Amino acid sequence: MTKYSFKNDYSEGAHPAILQRIIETNLQQTVGYGEDIFCNEARALIKEYIQRDSAIHFVSGGTQANLIVIAAILRPYESVIAAESGHIAVHETGAIEATGHKVNTINTDNGKINPSQIQEVLNQHTDEHMVKPKMVYISNSTEVGSVYSKSELTELYQFCQENNLYLFVDGARLGSALTSSTCDLTLEDLANLSDVFYIGGTKNGALIGEAIIINNQDLNENFRFHIKQRGGMLAKGRLIGIQFAELFKNNLFFEMGIHANAMAKKLADGISTKGFNFLNEPSSNQIFPILPNHLINQLQERFEFFVWQKIDEDSSAIRLVTSWATPEHQVDNFLNQL
Amino acid sequence: MTKYSFKNDYSEGAHPAILQRIIETNLQQTVGYGEDIFCNEARALIKEYIQRDSAIHFVSGGTQANLIVIAAILRPYESVIAAESGHIAVHETGAIEATGHKVNTINTDNGKINPSQIQEVLNQHTDEHMVKPKMVYISNSTEVGSVYSKSELTELYQFCQENNLYLFVDGARLGSALTSSTCDLTLEDLANLSDVFYIGGTKNGALIGEAIIINNQDLNENFRFHIKQRGGMLAKGRLIGIQFAELFKNNLFFEMGIHANAMAKKLADGISTKGFNFLNEPSSNQIFPILPNHLINQLQERFEFFVWQKIDEDSSAIRLVTSWATPEHQVDNFLNQL
Amino acid sequence: MTKYSFKNDYSEGAHPAILQRIIETNLQQTVGYGEDIFCNEARALIKEYIQRDSAIHFVSGGTQANLIVIAAILRPYESVIAAESGHIAVHETGAIEATGHKVNTINTDNGKINPSQIQEVLNQHTDEHMVKPKMVYISNSTEVGSVYSKSELTELYQFCQENNLYLFVDGARLGSALTSSTCDLTLEDLANLSDVFYIGGTKNGALIGEAIIINNQDLNENFRFHIKQRGGMLAKGRLIGIQFAELFKNNLFFEMGIHANAMAKKLADGISTKGFNFLNEPSSNQIFPILPNHLINQLQERFEFFVWQKIDEDSSAIRLVTSWATPEHQVDNFLNQL
Amino acid sequence: MTKYSFKNDYSEGAHPAILQRIIETNLQQTVGYGEDIFCNEARALIKEYIQRDSAIHFVSGGTQANLIVIAAILRPYESVIAAESGHIAVHETGAIEATGHKVNTINTDNGKINPSQIQEVLNQHTDEHMVKPKMVYISNSTEVGSVYSKSELTELYQFCQENNLYLFVDGARLGSALTSSTCDLTLEDLANLSDVFYIGGTKNGALIGEAIIINNQDLNENFRFHIKQRGGMLAKGRLIGIQFAELFKNNLFFEMGIHANAMAKKLADGISTKGFNFLNEPSSNQIFPILPNHLINQLQERFEFFVWQKIDEDSSAIRLVTSWATPEHQVDNFLNQL
Repeated sequence: MTKYSFKNDYSEGAHPAILQRIIETNLQQTVGYGEDIFCNEARALIKEYIQRDSAIHFVSGGTQANLIVIAAILRPYESVIAAESGHIAVHETGAIEATGHKVNTINTDNGKINPSQIQEVLNQHTDEHMVKPKMVYISNSTEVGSVYSKSELTELYQFCQENNLYLFVDGARLGSALTSSTCDLTLEDLANLSDVFYIGGTKNGALIGEAIIINNQDLNENFRFHIKQRGGMLAKGRLIGIQFAELFKNNLFFEMGIHANAMAKKLADGISTKGFNFLNEPSSNQIFPILPNHLINQLQERFEFFVWQKIDEDSSAIRLVTSWATPEHQVDNFLNQL
Repeated sequence: MTKYSFKNDYSEGAHPAILQRIIETNLQQTVGYGEDIFCNEARALIKEYIQRDSAIHFVSGGTQANLIVIAAILRPYESVIAAESGHIAVHETGAIEATGHKVNTINTDNGKINPSQIQEVLNQHTDEHMVKPKMVYISNSTEVGSVYSKSELTELYQFCQENNLYLFVDGARLGSALTSSTCDLTLEDLANLSDVFYIGGTKNGALIGEAIIINNQDLNENFRFHIKQRGGMLAKGRLIGIQFAELFKNNLFFEMGIHANAMAKKLADGISTKGFNFLNEPSSNQIFPILPNHLINQLQERFEFFVWQKIDEDSSAIRLVTSWATPEHQVDNFLNQL
Repeated sequence: MTKYSFKNDYSEGAHPAILQRIIETNLQQTVGYGEDIFCNEARALIKEYIQRDSAIHFVSGGTQANLIVIAAILRPYESVIAAESGHIAVHETGAIEATGHKVNTINTDNGKINPSQIQEVLNQHTDEHMVKPKMVYISNSTEVGSVYSKSELTELYQFCQENNLYLFVDGARLGSALTSSTCDLTLEDLANLSDVFYIGGTKNGALIGEAIIINNQDLNENFRFHIKQRGGMLAKGRLIGIQFAELFKNNLFFEMGIHANAMAKKLADGISTKGFNFLNEPSSNQIFPILPNHLINQLQERFEFFVWQKIDEDSSAIRLVTSWATPEHQVDNFLNQL
Repeated sequence: MTKYSFKNDYSEGAHPAILQRIIETNLQQTVGYGEDIFCNEARALIKEYIQRDSAIHFVSGGTQANLIVIAAILRPYESVIAAESGHIAVHETGAIEATGHKVNTINTDNGKINPSQIQEVLNQHTDEHMVKPKMVYISNSTEVGSVYSKSELTELYQFCQENNLYLFVDGARLGSALTSSTCDLTLEDLANLSDVFYIGGTKNGALIGEAIIINNQDLNENFRFHIKQRGGMLAKGRLIGIQFAELFKNNLFFEMGIHANAMAKKLADGISTKGFNFLNEPSSNQIFPILPNHLINQLQERFEFFVWQKIDEDSSAIRLVTSWATPEHQVDNFLNQL
């Protein structure tokens, strides 16, 4: 029997509407390298949401987006500040360092960083014998499922501007973050409150693809050279253009986030009802319930998920991830096992 | 009126059989990062063709394949030898240098390099004040449409082995090369006559994707770390696995190459019949006829293609590229304009 | 009035015996790039001390030594583990990252790291989505003046060998470390208990220069290519060879360490006698007394030194550094001000 | 019997006046890292010659100067144009590529490059699929002994400015170039006709050291971070400061160039008188006479020099290099052997 997987939000292919559009446009000839009509259609649709004339580039994955953006913006001696749990700090096999840059890390409780923590890092970097921190990297939602509020982001961006730091938001799971009930941010807000961010397609219903949005025009200079140099420029760039056009038509991107969050909330509520706690407050499509080990063992016979962290001898936190594709009946099945 | 484009072999989407398989498998859950059943199916199918237990990795594009392979294999002071017209030497925005390695170039007539030219490069590099050439990079077919014969490749690989050089074959257009009437190489031969090569999907009927085949097992050590570090590891690696499984089922990969070549040959024959010459002998899906400028201007009203090179005041070489998707009637239309 | 400086151990030129030898040999013609008779003489003398046929290379400074060694040894996805206070982690402007490698840091009390801390780092790095730690970097003496005992180093090296990690010892202040009264290590021990280390000349009486000692012969392959590529190969390599020959003739290197330590000990004893404490136990030529701020202000009128760290509202730790050149009467002068 | 060496201009130590000053200042305490009074004295002296308030930095060697300058100035996708015989293109073990940048090379007859050759390179680089040439690197004197005239340099710099290219002059042998009888350039001219250049100490009478002169103030931003990051910042920076102070006091730098050139000219005249030709016109301290192989063999019994290039079966070009330290009687000895 196949186990249903709550391991991640990239277990399935793509939303059917996206596949449909790929098929319909299949034999239409286009120019290559992201300058085709589909990419431009996607750009226009995104710009309606953000209400800015930001530069928009499409690449195939999150690590690629991160390394291209950071390597493009920083000078060799400049570093980027991130949470210790940040994707670039841990889970990219040193991709940022491979482009020559140090990641200065901040220890956090909930995956989010704030101005006073950044100030501490700045205080430690005083002269040319040390790197010069020049960018702040945050993920929204974070790697542990938390989301930034509008006031938190506003405060962060203001601090960055006052301190000549660029703010870059990794939006691999932005769909879930922006539609979280605990989040009061819009895509337009995000564009106004960051220098660069990217919108994750891979983890929100696309086959592949992330859209890099450069709000600070200075940072867009010759950006396409950087994409090409790092191997991120697809000959058939149309593939990502078509998908993002579909994602931002008819609100599909947000509707998928809403569904993922609803499934996560149903899981969380059910788990909570049974009297279990969480590693941190459930707020997006990743939740981290703490369960007895014997129950975890039982659940593993029917479901796949990550055991995240040992809590004590008898219990552990697990990670459950939902997506646009999570069927409600599998959520029910899971809850029925508790 | 839309002009028909002979500009390149990545103007359309993918072969319908590939799309069909993507749709059929869409909701099947898989693990990520290239370790899913589709990637494994593709690996098994390719291994049947090459009759070796080579390591096989999938990445999204050609520049990415090149930079990952080269950066993974070379030590910091080692360089790679390529034709001056080689893709890595000219058309990758310094992607190889961005990983820290020099490209030593060889001036060629037809895009192909031979042992005596490599020997000259080796002769010039004698001590630690210079880089140490350690790899030979060739493209098959080359950037100017020529293809290597089995005896040429055999001689090259033998020379490389005798001189402790790795041989890496860029197969962005391998589909057309292996099915060229001037080519006596099989995929199996290629695997036996190189340390590493990649099979291009993007330019032969896939949406995206290239398969890196590592025949020299020493070079595969921790290769997945390199893929991840350079941003080449897709969460939904299945997307490329599904495509390569389809490409190497029922001979589809080769049939598309055959069609592309047939269309190119029909174009070449028709052009030749009209009395025009070529920049070099047509042998794959890229041909370079030399036409009078006034005729080029006329053709440009109906077709898109690159004007490759000025020949004299009155004539230029153009590049025509065919693919799996080239309809024969467009070839006829083109010939009718001559 | 010129203030006497206890700021560092590189405030003066070189030991007169070194200058004398530079003058005597000045017009003797030699080959370049570290292959001259003086470099070879220095190598032979060092080998007598270490009783091994290690490879020995000379470079001009500590950051250069560190970045060349680390970049030469690690593969792109491999990282180096260091104390948070380690020179490569903080005070080299991201020099290691600029060669593409992550530094994994360990929080320490006294600048020294031990096997269990390293094990924790290894535990966190499990697969290809993370860097692969492959080297441990320690400084002896450390950046806060502590020194490793023979048993500590033995334990560390054994752990490294069991875990396939290379051990690299930064010996910028090795002269003071090896002659510390709290240290039972010899140069020979160090060579037997590390894969690579470097002997600091700059901070122990040379004009410039560090000697890299590669005990693990595998790591010496083509090492001169790395030196050249990173700009570390001096045409007049003789300059460093002459100095190291002099340093290791007549025990000069160790005698200078002994003097530096004696001056530091006299300072520490005098300060202690007056009832002041230290940030950590004085054991080499850097000591960190905690003094009342008003006393620090008074001392600053006569002496130069770094105020290292605020302790509370009324007191701070300062750093006092002695060297081969520290005159005893300046130590007395300082103590007289307390 | 020791053979006298004409192999290079770094066979001896330093001019005695330099050593004298090192001794006199030996126990004077200074701050570190190139901010001491000697470095500042040297800066002031050089500024008198160039009559500009350029930024001046000292590093230990030529490859180091080249890689720091180029890596500091170029953005990741930008390249540097150089002669095929340029030091950075051949003899630095890929140091420039190791910082991530491509070197675009120009084939030259005499080691010098001109605007029309640069224009050709620019013409080939049209879009983001290729690197963007942004700097021109020349050596003066060149690697084959030729020197640029004021009009040549003027034309070159004007072209660079018109095309948004930076001009960087490698002055490893600038002492000989500026005092060549075929050169009408002054140090002041050079500062007015380049964005950056460096003055070579190593090959003109210093123990080690090169002075980087940044005339284009935009390029000096945070330059000290770059020096530190690449391992080029010496703790005892005073060592180079003292030497450059001495070199630019009493015209010593130029007098040594004059002597080296005079010795080279005497050699060249003598060789010419005997009826031998040269690979190229002798104009600085490197000359390339073409001699019969049997004579070369005889000369090698008494002298050391490089056999540069085979001319035909019976003769070869050799390279003879003179310096500040070349005694006239050795020149006479050499000529007497012809």
